[in-house]
Amino acid sequence: MEAYLDNSATTRCDAEAAELMMKLLTEDYGNPSSLHHKGVSAENYMNDARKKIAKTLKVSEKEICFTSGGTESNNLAIIGAAEANKRSGRHVITTAIEHPSVSNPMEYLKEQGYEVTYLPVDAYGVISPEDLKNAMREDTILVSLMQVNNEIGAVEPIEEAGEIIKAQNPKTLFHVDAIQSYGKFKIYPAKMKIDLLSVSGHKIHGPKGSGFLYIKDKTKIHPILKGGGQQRGMRSGTENVPAIAGLGVAADKIYRNLDEKIEAMYQLREYFIGEVTKISGVSVNGHTDRKNAPHIVSVSVEGVRAEVLLHALEDKGIYVSAGSACSSNKPAVSRTLKSIGLKQELLDSTVRFSFSVETTKEEIDYALSEMAALIPMLQKYTRH
Amino acid sequence: MEAYLDNSATTRCDAEAAELMMKLLTEDYGNPSSLHHKGVSAENYMNDARKKIAKTLKVSEKEICFTSGGTESNNLAIIGAAEANKRSGRHVITTAIEHPSVSNPMEYLKEQGYEVTYLPVDAYGVISPEDLKNAMREDTILVSLMQVNNEIGAVEPIEEAGEIIKAQNPKTLFHVDAIQSYGKFKIYPAKMKIDLLSVSGHKIHGPKGSGFLYIKDKTKIHPILKGGGQQRGMRSGTENVPAIAGLGVAADKIYRNLDEKIEAMYQLREYFIGEVTKISGVSVNGHTDRKNAPHIVSVSVEGVRAEVLLHALEDKGIYVSAGSACSSNKPAVSRTLKSIGLKQELLDSTVRFSFSVETTKEEIDYALSEMAALIPMLQKYTRH
Repeated sequence: MEAYLDNSATTRCDAEAAELMMKLLTEDYGNPSSLHHKGVSAENYMNDARKKIAKTLKVSEKEICFTSGGTESNNLAIIGAAEANKRSGRHVITTAIEHPSVSNPMEYLKEQGYEVTYLPVDAYGVISPEDLKNAMREDTILVSLMQVNNEIGAVEPIEEAGEIIKAQNPKTLFHVDAIQSYGKFKIYPAKMKIDLLSVSGHKIHGPKGSGFLYIKDKTKIHPILKGGGQQRGMRSGTENVPAIAGLGVAADKIYRNLDEKIEAMYQLREYFIGEVTKISGVSVNGHTDRKNAPHIVSVSVEGVRAEVLLHALEDKGIYVSAGSACSSNKPAVSRTLKSIGLKQELLDSTVRFSFSVETTKEEIDYALSEMAALIPMLQKYTRH
Repeated sequence: MEAYLDNSATTRCDAEAAELMMKLLTEDYGNPSSLHHKGVSAENYMNDARKKIAKTLKVSEKEICFTSGGTESNNLAIIGAAEANKRSGRHVITTAIEHPSVSNPMEYLKEQGYEVTYLPVDAYGVISPEDLKNAMREDTILVSLMQVNNEIGAVEPIEEAGEIIKAQNPKTLFHVDAIQSYGKFKIYPAKMKIDLLSVSGHKIHGPKGSGFLYIKDKTKIHPILKGGGQQRGMRSGTENVPAIAGLGVAADKIYRNLDEKIEAMYQLREYFIGEVTKISGVSVNGHTDRKNAPHIVSVSVEGVRAEVLLHALEDKGIYVSAGSACSSNKPAVSRTLKSIGLKQELLDSTVRFSFSVETTKEEIDYALSEMAALIPMLQKYTRH
């Protein structure tokens, strides 16, 4: 049996999405910039995807800018917004537990002379609205918050943050990294006062190499990739029509019956947490209730190194991550786990289980039974 | 019948490449950064593509950096090299006829305080090596030349340029935009003294959203997309494994029996030029012999607007470009056509025919016979 529980790293591409991609690669393969109808046809596929995606967020189609994925979306949002608004100030705010595709652009901004405030998080990985309020300044041009943390599934108070930001300084742009939340949460940028929102396709059963940045109409932002002026100049380069169309299918599908899907994932999560914590030395990081995201469970195992557990599990066909596994495969100490104050000896003993709408109870049961057998054995042999 | 003669805008994706992509989207869909074997398997597909591509250029695998396409490759090369080397100088050299994905990053550098020299071209679109020599300075940090112009197929003297650049200033980086030449020319960066070389996948029957930048080992260049540190930090973001693998297949295939393919395209080109110029008022821009690229024919038609001809041809199933069609679909006056000194009245009367290795004599004959019928009629009705 196999249990793929690494869906926050990447998901299987939806078959319908992949088939449409196949068609657009080999049959309707025009360049949207071509004036003839092979080009127009390509543009129509793209517009159709844009429409489907805009609907999931209740935004306007022209506010969707396709990118090559989540990292590009985050880079475009942060560097693009900072560069376009530097005359209004050079202060930006983010959290201590962002994904590297946010924290590294922030480090770049620091090198460019911007000032970055990192908000701390509590033991569950959640920022305090009060801290955000206190951090806001007249020269704050951007606040960038992840909605769901990729390592432990902490959910940040996005709607409250939007209120605070705009009350303090209506001109401050609000960017949300929704890469782990899109397709698991209902996100309405207008209601939540979000100006920029990053999404990745391959986390929601769309293709790798797809993603978008929601850019609220009239938001001042500079492009990162300069060239032919595609997508109203915001993102030059021949549009990846097959991937865009595949993303459209995936986005449309994931938002159908979303409430039921969320409920099913929460039930799996609660069942998994209930069972896994019965194993001696096992604890779960972050909120165990529905304050947390439905699809991520961060599990610490006393006396077992994460990599050892990961490989023991993969021998059984169970796939999980050590740390976040979203970055290149050098395991570094997790800033998220440190920020929530995880005991030193557990930092290197934590694995992430991540579900998708396709995850089944059978997979969870299989993973649980193998872990119940493996963990005591590993603890016995690897304990020093 | 259909004649797709817009292959410099985009090509049909190779079926074998598309099938492999399908497999990597829906079956072997791991994230290369995952430590388990689904991740390792994804990494292997990527390494295999890297190996195939490196072989076509006779370079080392680690010198291939995958990107989302030609525009990103050009941006990374130009902005990345300029930023990383600004302490050595702020002067860069390019030509007057570059694609917007080069000329717009150059404009951006100008805004950042760099000085840009634009080399003129002759009536065939070719720069003078003497001009390059004269433009070189002690503070020249980068020279960026396209190998094949996308509008008329002019071939720039890359090897000679490499000699000149390195003789004048060994530290000056040499970037070649090979987006229209890769797969039609044998390119050996070491021999040609090239440090950076941009390639796009969808111009060579690979997938859209794929491409790479060859970065010579030890070349100082800053990444544009910052994040998880994938590809040795040069290009963060989960690698688009399906597209990368598809690109590997396409690159490998296009370089098999290349000499025969080039010969076949030149024969088609020469035949096409011989016949099309028999039509009254029709002329061809650029070299008509083998000094030009084998796959691009720029055709000016007196008294017929390009868009009118394009749409008349598409009604017959013949697909061509007005101008370059690589940029968003606002037709602007072509800098290339202006730079070669094309008569004012022909600037707006020029279409591009572009072939691929799949183009057949039947398609060419069909296009020729329809043009012979259409052009005199259009000239009659639209002449003022």
